[in-house]
Amino acid sequence: MRYRARVEYDGTDYAGSQIQARERTVQGVLEATLDRLPGGSGVRIEVAGRTDAGVHALGQVVAFTYPGRLSRAELRRALNALLPADVAIGPLVEVDSAFRPRYAARYREYRYTIWNGPPSPLRERYALGVRERLDAAAMAEAAQALVGRHDFSAFAAAGGGRDIRPIRTLHEIRVRRRGRTVTIDVIGDAFLRQMVRSITAALLLVGRGAASAEDVAAALGRRERAWDGAVAPPQGLCLRRVVLGRPGETTE
Amino acid sequence: MRYRARVEYDGTDYAGSQIQARERTVQGVLEATLDRLPGGSGVRIEVAGRTDAGVHALGQVVAFTYPGRLSRAELRRALNALLPADVAIGPLVEVDSAFRPRYAARYREYRYTIWNGPPSPLRERYALGVRERLDAAAMAEAAQALVGRHDFSAFAAAGGGRDIRPIRTLHEIRVRRRGRTVTIDVIGDAFLRQMVRSITAALLLVGRGAASAEDVAAALGRRERAWDGAVAPPQGLCLRRVVLGRPGETTE
Repeated sequence: MRYRARVEYDGTDYAGSQIQARERTVQGVLEATLDRLPGGSGVRIEVAGRTDAGVHALGQVVAFTYPGRLSRAELRRALNALLPADVAIGPLVEVDSAFRPRYAARYREYRYTIWNGPPSPLRERYALGVRERLDAAAMAEAAQALVGRHDFSAFAAAGGGRDIRPIRTLHEIRVRRRGRTVTIDVIGDAFLRQMVRSITAALLLVGRGAASAEDVAAALGRRERAWDGAVAPPQGLCLRRVVLGRPGETTE
Repeated sequence: MRYRARVEYDGTDYAGSQIQARERTVQGVLEATLDRLPGGSGVRIEVAGRTDAGVHALGQVVAFTYPGRLSRAELRRALNALLPADVAIGPLVEVDSAFRPRYAARYREYRYTIWNGPPSPLRERYALGVRERLDAAAMAEAAQALVGRHDFSAFAAAGGGRDIRPIRTLHEIRVRRRGRTVTIDVIGDAFLRQMVRSITAALLLVGRGAASAEDVAAALGRRERAWDGAVAPPQGLCLRRVVLGRPGETTE
């Protein structure tokens, strides 16, 4: 039986979503937990949206094929009982044996959260703390140049993915301030590695008055890694939702 | 020069606010950090509201006498630069040399947060996860019996404080639901040890239908530790504000 499920994690103590030797990863922890369940040995977890070390997820989507005898509800309960407190799995949904979450994802929603105030331990686990007042309106305006179908080489991880076509479509970028919290919501079909954090780093420069909307548009047009590869720190980033292929089929 | 300041901390990795040998405590970390600054050696930190292991604070108040040469602004900046990420100090305010935060506190506001939904790692660092649906209206009603000046022995830590008069005044208890989040705000002049978490444990029984408003009122009246000393876990509790003696003088 093949299942998909929403997975939520606090990424602080993970070296990212994808399995790596000698590192604690979301895939690794899920597979090790399945391995302890009847029929779960050797089950391979696939992930819809790769996340880097320290990045959180509220609505990651995973899929796996489970040949064991636990029912859907038993399997979910057993997994949540054995998983560490920083990762949890939602209801399991039966999918076709050919289902691949990475290819089934129609679009992905990320949020980057900024705590725009004095040091705040209770807020900065899931946000970047920025002391100096950011101009969120200028950030919102500058972001609009990135909406649409573009070559995002200017905002891709340095050295990563030479073999990947760097064309992506951003459907929407919303920058909003509520009190001292500034959020950047980025919705797109797919993302290059570190793309949201690279865009955030550029928008932070705009918010500080160190770059203009024109600078952001020009950087995109040059299609070369901009601002010396600056990326915003991971703790502010959260993969909030993966919307799957068929309209109406979503993870939340 | 004597100062008071607001202190915020993520209590997860602290054995409470008060210094203890061989334990990481908020007082201990603040004193050790002061010890690294010019003139900060041997400075003793006093705390307005004691918090237990794992309890958070957004608006703790501390006071200390600093004989060194750093200015008020320099001292705060130096402290925040050297403190670990899970504790931060707000602006320093000059106070009288006789100022004692514990006695200057006019009232204290605590919030207990419950995530009333399926396992959620991103919410349960600062909330208690409760899967079964709680009746927040019944909890709100039951809480009202506790408002006022009472002997709170029924809700005090087992074995703690035989020498302390267990009379306290609760000004207000508000239980509110917003979506899947239920909050219990408790405002009082002072609190017995584990009092808010003991009250929360009782209200959780009410929310689950396992106790009634009458049971809570009767327990208070018996003035004996109720429900086998049940206390709600610490991660849901946060000391949000300490309001100081003179009207209008507050920490937020």
